[in-house]
Amino acid sequence: MKKYNTSPLSGMQELLPTEQAVFDQLKQNISDVYHHYGFLSIETPLIERTDILLAKAGGDTEKQIYMVSKTAESADAPDQALRFDHTVPLARYVVEHNNDLAFPFQVTQINRNFRGERAQRGRFREFYQCDADIIGREKLPIAYDAKVIACIYDALKTFNLPKMVIRISNRKVLAGFLEALGLTDKATEISGIIDHAEKVPEEKSRAALAELGLSEEQVSKVCAFMFTKGNFEEVSGKLREILGDLTAVEEGLNELKQVTEILEAENTGNFIIDFMIIRGLDYYTGTVFETMLEDYREIGSIASGGRYENLASNFTEQSFPGVGGSIGLTRLFFVLRECNLINMTTTQPIDYVILPLSQNEYEASFELARKLRADGKTVDVDLTERKLGDRFNRAGKIANFAIVIGNDEVIAQKYKAKNLKTGETIELVA
Amino acid sequence: MKKYNTSPLSGMQELLPTEQAVFDQLKQNISDVYHHYGFLSIETPLIERTDILLAKAGGDTEKQIYMVSKTAESADAPDQALRFDHTVPLARYVVEHNNDLAFPFQVTQINRNFRGERAQRGRFREFYQCDADIIGREKLPIAYDAKVIACIYDALKTFNLPKMVIRISNRKVLAGFLEALGLTDKATEISGIIDHAEKVPEEKSRAALAELGLSEEQVSKVCAFMFTKGNFEEVSGKLREILGDLTAVEEGLNELKQVTEILEAENTGNFIIDFMIIRGLDYYTGTVFETMLEDYREIGSIASGGRYENLASNFTEQSFPGVGGSIGLTRLFFVLRECNLINMTTTQPIDYVILPLSQNEYEASFELARKLRADGKTVDVDLTERKLGDRFNRAGKIANFAIVIGNDEVIAQKYKAKNLKTGETIELVA
Repeated sequence: MKKYNTSPLSGMQELLPTEQAVFDQLKQNISDVYHHYGFLSIETPLIERTDILLAKAGGDTEKQIYMVSKTAESADAPDQALRFDHTVPLARYVVEHNNDLAFPFQVTQINRNFRGERAQRGRFREFYQCDADIIGREKLPIAYDAKVIACIYDALKTFNLPKMVIRISNRKVLAGFLEALGLTDKATEISGIIDHAEKVPEEKSRAALAELGLSEEQVSKVCAFMFTKGNFEEVSGKLREILGDLTAVEEGLNELKQVTEILEAENTGNFIIDFMIIRGLDYYTGTVFETMLEDYREIGSIASGGRYENLASNFTEQSFPGVGGSIGLTRLFFVLRECNLINMTTTQPIDYVILPLSQNEYEASFELARKLRADGKTVDVDLTERKLGDRFNRAGKIANFAIVIGNDEVIAQKYKAKNLKTGETIELVA
Repeated sequence: MKKYNTSPLSGMQELLPTEQAVFDQLKQNISDVYHHYGFLSIETPLIERTDILLAKAGGDTEKQIYMVSKTAESADAPDQALRFDHTVPLARYVVEHNNDLAFPFQVTQINRNFRGERAQRGRFREFYQCDADIIGREKLPIAYDAKVIACIYDALKTFNLPKMVIRISNRKVLAGFLEALGLTDKATEISGIIDHAEKVPEEKSRAALAELGLSEEQVSKVCAFMFTKGNFEEVSGKLREILGDLTAVEEGLNELKQVTEILEAENTGNFIIDFMIIRGLDYYTGTVFETMLEDYREIGSIASGGRYENLASNFTEQSFPGVGGSIGLTRLFFVLRECNLINMTTTQPIDYVILPLSQNEYEASFELARKLRADGKTVDVDLTERKLGDRFNRAGKIANFAIVIGNDEVIAQKYKAKNLKTGETIELVA
């Protein structure tokens, strides 16, 4: 017999059933909150035309994209590949179906994406992303930025994580700030330095800025900017201090004001304006945000997103401004487990295992199972004829309760459920 | 601007949000029933090692399998491809994780698979299959065959389809029957002819059998066999009539008896033993079944499955007998819509759209939304500042009710919900 390697491919998540049940519950929680906020689900194919996926590529995308072969029977297909995010397929979907959509189009995609990155512990080549986006036609009020943030925050609240904080910034503030300093031509490099500032000592950021040719005063101002955080009054006070007046950053500040006011009205938890937030992706044009765990900053952002001026600029001349956010669930699940922040052991995936002592009790067992299922319970009827000890052993691995049914129970029509963790027995009310 | 083709690739399902909501509900219904029966979810990667996928290939598989490239950053990966069913990955999973699984392992996989078939209306290259399998270690009682059938039947019942019938056979009955006629060496060809018999006039099947070299008597007996259907007494009576005695088919008949007795005890709906059921796949070794709509036989089987002696024989010398069934949801959804058997128009995906008349009513709107969401409702708050008519128009496309909130409503703390289909207004109890 040929020997096969039966482990999953490197970079792919594969869970045991009890772990999968926890993962699925978290995914369901996110989905429920998104739906409660009025987001509609769509599902685009996992395989797309390569030219659509690479329309605005560059950077790492081309090095990470998985091409998919044609097959002998589908030689008619164009060049195709696995999608690497939900955004490009969403742009294509909106252009293709825009006449049938109601704008603002609030849409969620919770599904797998693929990136053939270098193998690394905790990095996945196939991973779930839970996206929520709101797409306007021609225009989309800034209030929707707050809605996306509130929704994603509420979704994460279902994880019961310690001390979450949403850090919010606005790209227009940064752009205006750099313009006021006469640094617009170095905006990309400076953004990169601010984006990395959290991971290096301040001295390194200063040196990097100086190396770009910034004067000492400019370096100090940029550093003062990137360490600015607080509520709206605090950050605008600080900006006034640095810049003298707020004309250059007025538009961005005004957007931040609206977003934070609505987050207050929405009663959204712990958020802060923080100008160190950049979000690498160059398509963000206004609001940007990240969510962190204050006591686990090493985990990095657990959800993020922002405003993009035009979702589908590569595919159409129509304007579809949008705002969106995403929870990278596969990676998040991995890191939260590493930090013991997910309770993996509370309950088993199945409520009851019924153990008929012989075939004579099958009918009664099926009837009881039907009743319990009608109550929404998950019920397995064990039809093996192994020793009762072995059957209890199996039940303990997957279920919370076992119900033994013998002749006595059938005659009395009374059933007892045994808690497989505590050994406690409770009478079932039929 | 370069012109892009924004339609999904040929053979891929892509739905509008309201259609997707119906599809997702059907998928959820299936998943709920499988879970209620105690099946545990697993999710294997969509990409697998090619040698695993092709370990037992042959037939169409190699012509239809999508190979996946390595990428510049994942050159370390072995040859890989997209899975074409759930069964091969399940076999790998069971071998890989068998020490951590509780046997019998009742497992469900509801997810996408990929086959690069010829493009054809109603055939999909990317499609959902909803599988339920039970895997034993060394042995698995025949009673589990009935459990899989009952579970899949219950899942399909949630679709509210007209007159479903489960047709059940057993490969051992066919094998014994052909052995009794001395036709074992032609079993594969005869199975093929029986498998196709439904789609051609009886004369054609007879001619094909005769062409194989069967005597006129053998042809008549095989035809009598394949048209045999009914309850257990009826089919065993008929077999006795054809064969003279039942020794050769005893084992298969005995299994059929057990399966149908348990289906009776399970209170499973309309089923019939029908020897025309073969199921093409050669790995089935005992029970086989199909489900049909009696009044829509042209649709063909809407769910099917059977018993396989050894799930993982390509990967291990351990024995994992199993029984499983599958609902091909993407194709089923397509054909049921074609036959108008799915109600696409009952309700909208969102319960309420709240329409604040100005920003002054945002806070009250968010508060009402929070309350409704806590009640499990899906609620969109419209934050556009368009004309009320336009906002109602959008609401009507996605929601069942609209709630207008102006200053009066905020002061009175009384809200009215307008049914967007009937125009009727009801007061909300806060």
